[in-house]
Amino acid sequence: MDKLRLGMIGGGEGAFIGPVHRIAARLDRRFDLVAGAFSSDPERSRQSGAALGLDPARVYGDWRAMLAGEAGALDAVAIVTPNHLHAAPAIAALDAGLHVICDKPLAASLSHAEAIAAAVARSGRVFVLTHQYAAYPMIRQARAMIASGALGALRMIRVEYAQDWLTRPLENEGHKQAAWRVDPAQAGPGGALGDIGTHAYQLASFVTGLKADALCADLQSFGAGRVLDDNAQMLLAYPGGARGTLWISQVAPGKTNGLQLSIYGSDAGLEWGQEHPNQLRFTRFGEPAQILERGGPSAMAQAYGVRVPAGHPEGYLEALAQIYADAAELIDARNAGRAPSVDPGLVPGVEDGVEGLRFVLGAVASSKRRAWLSRAEWVAE
Amino acid sequence: MDKLRLGMIGGGEGAFIGPVHRIAARLDRRFDLVAGAFSSDPERSRQSGAALGLDPARVYGDWRAMLAGEAGALDAVAIVTPNHLHAAPAIAALDAGLHVICDKPLAASLSHAEAIAAAVARSGRVFVLTHQYAAYPMIRQARAMIASGALGALRMIRVEYAQDWLTRPLENEGHKQAAWRVDPAQAGPGGALGDIGTHAYQLASFVTGLKADALCADLQSFGAGRVLDDNAQMLLAYPGGARGTLWISQVAPGKTNGLQLSIYGSDAGLEWGQEHPNQLRFTRFGEPAQILERGGPSAMAQAYGVRVPAGHPEGYLEALAQIYADAAELIDARNAGRAPSVDPGLVPGVEDGVEGLRFVLGAVASSKRRAWLSRAEWVAE
Amino acid sequence: MDKLRLGMIGGGEGAFIGPVHRIAARLDRRFDLVAGAFSSDPERSRQSGAALGLDPARVYGDWRAMLAGEAGALDAVAIVTPNHLHAAPAIAALDAGLHVICDKPLAASLSHAEAIAAAVARSGRVFVLTHQYAAYPMIRQARAMIASGALGALRMIRVEYAQDWLTRPLENEGHKQAAWRVDPAQAGPGGALGDIGTHAYQLASFVTGLKADALCADLQSFGAGRVLDDNAQMLLAYPGGARGTLWISQVAPGKTNGLQLSIYGSDAGLEWGQEHPNQLRFTRFGEPAQILERGGPSAMAQAYGVRVPAGHPEGYLEALAQIYADAAELIDARNAGRAPSVDPGLVPGVEDGVEGLRFVLGAVASSKRRAWLSRAEWVAE
Amino acid sequence: MDKLRLGMIGGGEGAFIGPVHRIAARLDRRFDLVAGAFSSDPERSRQSGAALGLDPARVYGDWRAMLAGEAGALDAVAIVTPNHLHAAPAIAALDAGLHVICDKPLAASLSHAEAIAAAVARSGRVFVLTHQYAAYPMIRQARAMIASGALGALRMIRVEYAQDWLTRPLENEGHKQAAWRVDPAQAGPGGALGDIGTHAYQLASFVTGLKADALCADLQSFGAGRVLDDNAQMLLAYPGGARGTLWISQVAPGKTNGLQLSIYGSDAGLEWGQEHPNQLRFTRFGEPAQILERGGPSAMAQAYGVRVPAGHPEGYLEALAQIYADAAELIDARNAGRAPSVDPGLVPGVEDGVEGLRFVLGAVASSKRRAWLSRAEWVAE
Repeated sequence: MDKLRLGMIGGGEGAFIGPVHRIAARLDRRFDLVAGAFSSDPERSRQSGAALGLDPARVYGDWRAMLAGEAGALDAVAIVTPNHLHAAPAIAALDAGLHVICDKPLAASLSHAEAIAAAVARSGRVFVLTHQYAAYPMIRQARAMIASGALGALRMIRVEYAQDWLTRPLENEGHKQAAWRVDPAQAGPGGALGDIGTHAYQLASFVTGLKADALCADLQSFGAGRVLDDNAQMLLAYPGGARGTLWISQVAPGKTNGLQLSIYGSDAGLEWGQEHPNQLRFTRFGEPAQILERGGPSAMAQAYGVRVPAGHPEGYLEALAQIYADAAELIDARNAGRAPSVDPGLVPGVEDGVEGLRFVLGAVASSKRRAWLSRAEWVAE
Repeated sequence: MDKLRLGMIGGGEGAFIGPVHRIAARLDRRFDLVAGAFSSDPERSRQSGAALGLDPARVYGDWRAMLAGEAGALDAVAIVTPNHLHAAPAIAALDAGLHVICDKPLAASLSHAEAIAAAVARSGRVFVLTHQYAAYPMIRQARAMIASGALGALRMIRVEYAQDWLTRPLENEGHKQAAWRVDPAQAGPGGALGDIGTHAYQLASFVTGLKADALCADLQSFGAGRVLDDNAQMLLAYPGGARGTLWISQVAPGKTNGLQLSIYGSDAGLEWGQEHPNQLRFTRFGEPAQILERGGPSAMAQAYGVRVPAGHPEGYLEALAQIYADAAELIDARNAGRAPSVDPGLVPGVEDGVEGLRFVLGAVASSKRRAWLSRAEWVAE
Repeated sequence: MDKLRLGMIGGGEGAFIGPVHRIAARLDRRFDLVAGAFSSDPERSRQSGAALGLDPARVYGDWRAMLAGEAGALDAVAIVTPNHLHAAPAIAALDAGLHVICDKPLAASLSHAEAIAAAVARSGRVFVLTHQYAAYPMIRQARAMIASGALGALRMIRVEYAQDWLTRPLENEGHKQAAWRVDPAQAGPGGALGDIGTHAYQLASFVTGLKADALCADLQSFGAGRVLDDNAQMLLAYPGGARGTLWISQVAPGKTNGLQLSIYGSDAGLEWGQEHPNQLRFTRFGEPAQILERGGPSAMAQAYGVRVPAGHPEGYLEALAQIYADAAELIDARNAGRAPSVDPGLVPGVEDGVEGLRFVLGAVASSKRRAWLSRAEWVAE
Repeated sequence: MDKLRLGMIGGGEGAFIGPVHRIAARLDRRFDLVAGAFSSDPERSRQSGAALGLDPARVYGDWRAMLAGEAGALDAVAIVTPNHLHAAPAIAALDAGLHVICDKPLAASLSHAEAIAAAVARSGRVFVLTHQYAAYPMIRQARAMIASGALGALRMIRVEYAQDWLTRPLENEGHKQAAWRVDPAQAGPGGALGDIGTHAYQLASFVTGLKADALCADLQSFGAGRVLDDNAQMLLAYPGGARGTLWISQVAPGKTNGLQLSIYGSDAGLEWGQEHPNQLRFTRFGEPAQILERGGPSAMAQAYGVRVPAGHPEGYLEALAQIYADAAELIDARNAGRAPSVDPGLVPGVEDGVEGLRFVLGAVASSKRRAWLSRAEWVAE
């Protein structure tokens, strides 16, 4: 199988997520990074490309130049810029016939998000949004278990995603990652909501197959001078009677990347934490708790590839790599006009991105009004 | 020091909490159970007393008879009846000059709760409400740490208390404990809210020193045919800007008695779970997490008595015994007209009970209206 | 049921284990402490008795005086003196027709231990040795599971018991508990071996039903100037082909009371830790790990009494109280000439004590010779 | 920086460790796999190469053919064959001027191991042995902490490595991985000892900087018909007075890949487990336990590269990738005649392999004789 030719937009030296995407892209050997517009600063882009051993002729100071210069020489682009810089290159790439892998959240505004969705629809290209937490093996297993009815009727869907890196006003100390994330112009309407709230909401939806139909949110900006939320909690209602809670924070001392999901149904419960992602606690009512292991007994092997056996921990990079591997399979299948071997429902796409933006807007509106909002109300925002 | 003479109301054979109170009362050797009206069924009361080795002459089929028959022969009564049967004996006992130790929630209605509070005020007697979770050593340490400023300004106060024993409709299967707890006439306006929600709310208040000044609650009755809540989640706002979340459930499969408290401030966080109560996770921002141990390094020994050293786990009975030991000290001090050696602020009392009732009523009202309610609004309910 | 009349020998003010025994004795309401010779210092004994509210006439400065003065007025004595002071009062009490509850290790020498065993045999009295860790509910469950074949043929029996309180030479700083434990004249041939090694070895034997038939030990005295071991590790061989390891330490920084037991058979494994004693990890080969809970699903309720439900943690005091409750049942049954309702095999007795002494002597001899010793060899020591 | 050209020997389709090495080699983008002799079955080798997208001309049915055919076209080879097939290709590759990355254990016999060491010495080439567990960030941190004196004088060094995959006689059921590992002709003198015991022993040595100078081992073959050990435990003595224990098992139900290291010194302790490798428990005597995190506060960043921040778990593949990245740096530096930027002491080499073989032989001999053996004695074996 030939590797797919990948160009990257963003992710130059000093970036956090760019290098991570590059490792993930090569881990399963389905992509070759062959070109890049790593920065809008041409010199920085050039240096980044050189450090990666790319042909200097294929390193660009502008993504438009890359799309032009690489016409016919790329299969896909990976977009790892700040939120407000996703839409333009994504739409242009799609319209140029390229498949797109895009970091989350989809965009900094709903109109941008919907424009991307329209471009996906008209182009017929594969668009993958890197909600990588949904690709952890035990999360896929949780989804499969719930779909199979193992929990009975869902009652409570609890998700939290707490960090502490913005406890102090890092954005005032020259911290690039902090600076753009607290700036509405670059981040969009949500701060922590956009950055990690969209992950948390998507994860709960991915595992349960449900989208919230009402929410009541309470947002805070604890950091002095912050305009965007750095902490938020909310109540949710889901179709079929299940209820939910969601808490996100970037100001919770002692939390590093604490994404936790707990789901309870009429027959059983499931609990999972991202920092120890290889285990899933499964509790059938009236039976002892079981600890399910990635690759171990009761692991549902069909749900995901296994690179190493149980007890050999896989982590964050492997989850993101799974997104890339699945993206490659979807792209190969699309290109070949065949059915993919991976269930497309497992791979987050543009609709997750649009839903995420609506979720952010709904939460912001609910918090402002201090009221429950139905989906109809928040979609109308 | 002479032991205090205790009479018990309720807690006959088959009860859950009665025997637990009896163990707790004797564990630290401050009380002698000398009389009882263990059941309104005289024969059952008699049998219970006999099993306890009590003088048959001091075992009664009615609490009124006990108060009359034991005039001058008791120092205190412990009331461990269902919620709606607290007020009458509590008020009568107080008015008879007895000190009272009463199970929570204080009453099944706010008017009853306030009547008890009035009786406490006019009698000058000690009234202790057994919110025993507040007596766990590491909870008292958490309270002392927060009071000392170890967390900085409080930002998030998260508490959950989840069980699974009502996942199935046990109340229809002759389960006495379940039956009265789901019956509004006996339990009051809250189901899980009254039974465990009051514990959760009190615990958060005890540790932080804060009472909520607004809440937005969402209650469910997942069990078929239930009138009262068996699951509830809510958003809270506290004075000074801190926010809170609270989740309680008696229908979460895999949760046995999962009371968890997590508090985050501008400088540090604290996390504690009741099922492993001897540890407290303390996370100063920018430092490694610390595991504080009951009786171990950094334990604040002044906050509580230590029966056994670190590593020798204490549990639920010891926490409740601490309530009894502290009650005895308050009673001895009150009787002697001296200052008690225990900080009265550590011992839950009638005001916690009234606050608990208001909390339940506020949550029920908020859920009905699907709206945030301020304290002023819910107190007016 | 009348409570048994208990006299205590040792355990005066400042002692560690005396107060713990007193709590345990009253927790389940089967004993009344009515007399005591709490110290060989009469004044200290008197003060201790007064603090306990005992009749001054029944508080003695000498255990011989107590046995004489309380003739016919006691059912049992609890002996909580240092190791070398167990034998004389135990034998005298047995010969006086009293039942005995004795702290471990049984004695400071094998000859003393055997003399106690002879006294037990000739007296026909109940003798209980307080290996309280064997009374934790999940340990009793582990024993029952293994006896029922749940693990298949046993292969590995691993036990460790590590503390850190002797990391520094506390015995030189006026620490009474440390001082006698490091003194061969008071402690006997083993230091940590006698103090905690006997617990660890007994626990492994209790759960598996096996006694070692060979061992190879390596003892250290890491503390400067120490004569007795403060750390030891050994290999063991058990009948039927199972092998074992045992590590004990009182100089392992970060270990508080770290008693851990792990057992693996041809079909399944079990793991338990004393600091979180309400859970037992059970791993059938080829199945997900199960977390068994005291009082929860799959708890073998017949193995032990349940004071509080699952999720309400029981601890160290409850385990020791179970020993006292079971001792009371054995005594009542012996006195009444009836079969006890508790399986006597669950209650550690004099034979555990003799075996413990032999184990200590065998380990000391093996370490000196730097060689494996068979049971025949070490019993001949 | 140009990527190094890598050829692989072994690791064809169906192998476990080959694919893992390939992921690790590319994860940090320092190697290009360009050629392979993946199997001694030419057709299987060809298919493996094709699946990897290699130029068919560079895929060989025999490693001798590869060394000949690729003369001048490779920088290094990775050897991932069964143990008895390491020596011949390693020596030939070294003598051909290639650097070598070799799976552990080094060889199936000490003479082979020493022959490889001689070839390394005479060739001046880099030789890296993939003891990947030594490359986990928190293990490197533990080593640095101990070297800095953070634990004081070392007292106890405890390591265990337990699995369960050989609980049942898989080798009789056509399981290729099991079959060669239990065959002395292919595996060498040790079964579990060679496969995982060498990892455990190396890890303890790596972290402490100490090699055992005496041991007393007890080996078992619990699996019916097995000649080699599948379980072993031993006592060790280290220079300077520290003692050790080591347990390995491949027949412990419920253990998947349970490599645990615990080290206690006169001032502090450290505990680490491979299945949750991003945390290190650090316990200074008299202070609360600290949980150190990879990439978090108190992480010693200089000890290792950080691919993703704290809370984004790294796992087994990243550890092995670190070995490859460091091998690349050593090779680049050797080729350039410059000092490497990585401390060569962090990278396991041929001397670890020879020591490992001696350790296996010493343990086998000690178990046979049922006696302690000094290093002098076991080296003479």
